[in-house]
This record gives sequence, structure tokens and C-alpha cells, in this order.
Amino acid sequence: MFNIIYAQSGGMTPVINNSAASLIRTAQKHSDRINKIYAAKNGIIGLIENRIVDITKLSEKELSLIENTSGGIFGTCRYKLKEDDYETYEKIYNTLKKYDIKCIFYNGGNDSADTSNKLCKIKEYFDYDLICIGIPKTIDNDLPFTDVCPGFPSSAKYIAISMLESSTDLKSMCLTSTKVTIIEIMGRHAGWLTAASSVWKKKESDSPHICLLPEIEFNENKFLELVKYFKEKYGYCTIAVSEGIKDGSGDFVANSKNVDSFGHKQLGGVGIQLSNLITTTLQYKCHCMVPDYLQRSCTHIATPIDIELAKAVGRNAVEYALDGKNNVMPMIVRKNSTPFEYEIVDVELSKIANVEKKLPDNYIKENGYEITKECRDYLKPYVFDANFSLYQDEDGKPIYFELD
Amino acid sequence: MFNIIYAQSGGMTPVINNSAASLIRTAQKHSDRINKIYAAKNGIIGLIENRIVDITKLSEKELSLIENTSGGIFGTCRYKLKEDDYETYEKIYNTLKKYDIKCIFYNGGNDSADTSNKLCKIKEYFDYDLICIGIPKTIDNDLPFTDVCPGFPSSAKYIAISMLESSTDLKSMCLTSTKVTIIEIMGRHAGWLTAASSVWKKKESDSPHICLLPEIEFNENKFLELVKYFKEKYGYCTIAVSEGIKDGSGDFVANSKNVDSFGHKQLGGVGIQLSNLITTTLQYKCHCMVPDYLQRSCTHIATPIDIELAKAVGRNAVEYALDGKNNVMPMIVRKNSTPFEYEIVDVELSKIANVEKKLPDNYIKENGYEITKECRDYLKPYVFDANFSLYQDEDGKPIYFELD
Repeated sequence: MFNIIYAQSGGMTPVINNSAASLIRTAQKHSDRINKIYAAKNGIIGLIENRIVDITKLSEKELSLIENTSGGIFGTCRYKLKEDDYETYEKIYNTLKKYDIKCIFYNGGNDSADTSNKLCKIKEYFDYDLICIGIPKTIDNDLPFTDVCPGFPSSAKYIAISMLESSTDLKSMCLTSTKVTIIEIMGRHAGWLTAASSVWKKKESDSPHICLLPEIEFNENKFLELVKYFKEKYGYCTIAVSEGIKDGSGDFVANSKNVDSFGHKQLGGVGIQLSNLITTTLQYKCHCMVPDYLQRSCTHIATPIDIELAKAVGRNAVEYALDGKNNVMPMIVRKNSTPFEYEIVDVELSKIANVEKKLPDNYIKENGYEITKECRDYLKPYVFDANFSLYQDEDGKPIYFELD
Repeated sequence: MFNIIYAQSGGMTPVINNSAASLIRTAQKHSDRINKIYAAKNGIIGLIENRIVDITKLSEKELSLIENTSGGIFGTCRYKLKEDDYETYEKIYNTLKKYDIKCIFYNGGNDSADTSNKLCKIKEYFDYDLICIGIPKTIDNDLPFTDVCPGFPSSAKYIAISMLESSTDLKSMCLTSTKVTIIEIMGRHAGWLTAASSVWKKKESDSPHICLLPEIEFNENKFLELVKYFKEKYGYCTIAVSEGIKDGSGDFVANSKNVDSFGHKQLGGVGIQLSNLITTTLQYKCHCMVPDYLQRSCTHIATPIDIELAKAVGRNAVEYALDGKNNVMPMIVRKNSTPFEYEIVDVELSKIANVEKKLPDNYIKENGYEITKECRDYLKPYVFDANFSLYQDEDGKPIYFELD
């Protein structure tokens, strides 16, 4: 018999609480081996500051409500453990000892994998045996090895439908009003979520016309030429832009561009910068959408596969611990795309910590502003929801009436 | 037997195409009296430029697809007819005569009611008998007489769930990250949609903590004190702000504030201005969401009552024409809130044109930054969707698990 603890870390996802509920449910089923189930408030900080709650007795109704809940029910943190911060490790050790906790489940992204990985210091410093299992989640989808990170599919769906609906609106309006729309999308270093804007794009006229990925150097002149091309050809131009696109010097456009023609600092992210650039150079009326937190908290639009995968990694994490595995994270391997089939495998935390997986070259077209069929095929099963729209195609894209 | 024409005007709503489909369906049912059904492309511009499509034979499947479609299927316009622009009225007259059209249905907001109303000039100038029926739609919800404008309920739902989800995210994150979130909401002169952010707010700790309405003068010092109060009391502060809030001089804050401390012009709307104000004065990390078009194109989240009302006004418009009514618009009268009951009545276009209905005084609390129970009771039936969340309360608010 041993006690376990669960904690959430980093940015939220629409389905992280599904991993929590699934982990708790699985641990409860193994009450012959797992005694107490604890949660740390605000991730590793709860362990450092001894803010611990006993969640052993949560009822099935409560677990269902947890699955229905946006955000992270136990609170999260952005906190990087230092290699040699003995004092902090001692505080964590004291909490673990106090509650006789022998196993930590840490639910997070790259930084959180780093935290999980560093917790092995506890054994080194205090000779305290500790099982440490990571659980993946991040809307950035940038963890290595895994086919997908739970949380990404729902955020990808949010971006896909946002692009489709706002573009259809623009198309209706563009004759006498706005000519260009920009959606600024999260993912500072990897373009997965920005690419999701194009999951349903089959032809040039489909939106987004221009998809600006952080993997591709931003070229202002080429960009403005493209905006002009699409506006003149179709009457409007739709743009998806990653918050993290960089210019030729490797600087974030969001930073480098936030200086106006007089050298004065400007407010806002890359979306509003590009909007200003287009308005001042091409004189096109431009609207900029910044979903920000909305794209990562959109539990109401969570896709079935995302919920399933979030639960699967929570369940597998407990099973790994019971199987005697340590310092691993459950990851998703795609076995088939249509129908979507997967299996869960364990990968060592040390191989995951601080590694960011970017969009591979074959997912980005030569032109640099569109994604390839390979990328769309990768994305499709994750945004699919059979019950999303009354009329939708095989990719889950709502079918719209088109005149003529 | 007579021919009719339908046109869409002004900003889009999530359900305007439901009005279109319902109108066409109703007209088809009266094929004994209505001969041809036409649509003008891009509103009144289609009539001026003779860009007309025959939609008499649209199938039931096509009408269902139209209902499934975001944006405005026939395109829209922002175009104000001048009182004495004889040449333009003559162009419209020529198109009407060419297609033998005796009845115009104009689907729009305040400006569109103005356009519909001015079309009676056609009779005056050319002695051409014309029935002119307006059909209400606007996410701003600012048309007089009607209890609600079709389109508003779905956008209100979008704002309500966006506020709930982003606030829950912030609450999870605020210990070590962002302290303040701002959602910038459409509605330049009337605070209906901004108020919808608070439809589910029952107590002070519920979000939004601060709701900034265009009906209330913005006071910078009072605002900053409030932000500080909520951040210190709850660890975070959530803000809903109308794009149209004004300062003591009656200037839009979005304009007046877009000058930095050096007097240099800044980019962005009021959300980013307030974000900058908070960051520079209180040093709180702040995130700003700007849904922009997303809040008015969100067909995927359309509420059942909104779809029903959009269809009802489309249907009634045709029936008014058949009953010999002219220069009227179908409007919604609430008969009961729980269960929601309504009836449709006709109101003269001249009484609607260019009149904006603002939030009444009794919908805004004395403190100026919260809405009253009367306002929430008004809003509730419109955002309600019985099938929205697996667990939700009687107001349609998703039920979240809360750790004691």
C-alpha cells in the first residue's frame, strides 16, 4: 500500500481535468494497493508549501463534474526547479514524508516534464524512494515522441471553426467594409495550433489564405504582396498568424514591429502589428482577432478524441506506477488515421524534458504560407466531432451553402 | 401574383441565414400568390447594380444547408441611401421594374431599417407601388420596441461562455502568472452584449469582476482602484469591456487612450489600452482577449431560441406582406420569462430607423460596474441551451467542480 499525489502545471488546456478525473478514478479502483490519493495545489508549489488536499473519497458524481470543468481544478503554476536548490527539494521532501507519498503524477508540458525529471533529486539528496510519472498536456502540441498532446485537439478545433466562421463573415462583408482579417494564435515556438487554422483548407480560395508559422522566417515584402494578391483575386484576405513568428534577425515580429515609424514603442501582439502594417501600406481595412486564453480554455468545444486521450494518459499513468515503472510519461502512438487508432506507450522523462517538437518540413508547403496534405491528414482526426454540425463533411467541417 | 426580393444588410449575425431560409420557405408555401423569389447580392447594392439571383426553386435540402451556414449567404453591405439621391433611386427602380418586383424584404439593424424606410421614395419618385418589410437582426441588440434582436442571443452565449472559461483558466493560473484578464466586446453605443458577460454572475467573486458598459462614463482612477481591490481580495481580476466606453469628455477611451505618456499614437482598441494602463500603473500581468468577428459569426454555438426567433421574423415578414402590411418590421414581445414565451408584432419602420436602444438604468447597478438581477433575468432565456453542457444549472451555466 502506498500514497500518491497528483498535480497540474503550466498553461491550462480544455481537457486537463479529464486526465485528473481519470487518474483519480483509476487509483480508486486499485484501493488494494493505493491507499491515499492527494492533490497538490498549484503544482509543485503545493508540494513546496505543503498545500495538499485529500481527494481519495471523491465520488463518481464529483469526478464527472471535474470532467465538466474548465481550467485546472487544483490550480497550476509556472515554476522552474533549480538543479541545486537543496532547500526547495528539502521542503518537497518534508511534504512527501509528512503524507507518506511514494508516487507523484505531474500533469504538464515540456517544463513540467523537466520538473518531474528533477524530482529524482529527492532520492539523491534524501534517499527517499519516489516514483515519478509525467502526464502530457499542452495546447502547443510540442512534446516529442507523442503523436499528439492532450488539449491540443480541442484547441485545434476552436481555431479551425474560428477561422471558418470569421472568414465566411468577412466574405459576406468585404464588398463595402473590412478586406482583411487576422487571427493571432498561441504557440510561440511551434506552429501546430496555427496550422490547425488550415485543417479544412483544400484549395487556394479556402481560408486562411496566408498561414504564418513560427517555423518560417517572416518576410514583410513577400507578406504584403500576398495580402494584395488575395485581396485583388478574391476581394478579401484571411490570415492566421502565430504569436511567435520571427523576422530575418531571429527577433519576434511582435517585438520588432512594435515600434512605429517614429521609433516609438507600440502596444499589442503580432496580430495588431500586422494589422497596422497592412492598413498603413496597403490601405486595406483590417480586423484582428486575438482569442488568447479563449483558445486554451474552450472546454465547451472539446473534441471526443481529445477527451478520450486525456483520460487514457491519466489512466495509464496510474497503471505504469503500479507496474513499477518510474520517470516515464505515457505517450500516444498513432496506429491508423481512418478510422483513428492509437496505443499508449511509456517514454522516459529525461528524453522529453525541455525538448520542443516543431512542425516537420513536410508539413509546410514550399511557398511557406500553406500546410501540406500530410499536415491536414495528421490534424483531421483530432478536430473531428461527429456531433458538431447538423451537416458536415467526412473531415468534420460544417457544410455551408454556396450560391452558384 | 407578385415577385419578391430578399436582401441582407449591415454586420453579420450567427443566425441571419435562418431568417433567410425561413422567409424563402414561407414564400414557397404561398406559391399561389408569390411568383418569383429573388435575392439581391450585397444588400441594397445588388438592387442598385442589378446583381440579382433567382432563388425561387431552392430545395428543402438547400434551405437546411443555408441554416447551417455562417455569415450572410447573399453578401451584405454598409451603405446609407441619401434622401435626395434621385439617380440611385432610379437605378433601384429600374432593377425592380426589370424583375417586376413588388415587395422588398430587408434584413438588417438600425441603418438597414433606415434603408427600408427610405425605399418608399421609389413610390414618390416613380409612382411604383412597393411593399417594404424590414426583418430585424443585430448582435448589438439595440433596436427599439423589440424585446430582442435575432443574432444577439447566440453572440450573448458566446460572450457568456468565453467569460466563464477564460476566468476559470485565470483562476487556475493566477498564483504565479497572469493576474488580470480583459475581454473586449462589440457594441459601440449599447452595452447589451457586454452585459451578457455577467448573465451567470450571482456573487461578487463570480466573473466578470468589473463590467465596463458604454452607458457609464469611464473613470480611470475608480477603475484602477477596483482592479486592485479584486486582485488583492481574490488573487485575480476579470474584466469585460465594451469597445465603446467613453471618458468624461465623451471621447471613446479606445481613441483618447491610444496616446502613450510621450504623446505618441498607439495601436489597438480599448482592451489593449486598459491592459497597458493596468500593467504600467499596477504592474499586474494582464491578458487581453479580442474576439472581434468571432463573437458575431459563432453559428456553431447558436442558441435554440435565437434560431427559433430568426426563423419566426423571416416567416412573419412574408405573412405581413401577404396581409397587405407595408413599411413595418416584425418585432418580438416577451410574454413570459420562465418558461420563455413570446409573440411577434409589427412595428412601423419609421419608428425604428436610426433609433438605438441602450441598457435601461434599472439594468445597471448603482456602482456602475455590475448589472442587476433584472438584467440577468432578461438575458437568461436567450443564452439558455438545454443541450449545451452535460451538467448545467437552470440558467444554462455549466456546473464546475469547486474544491472547498
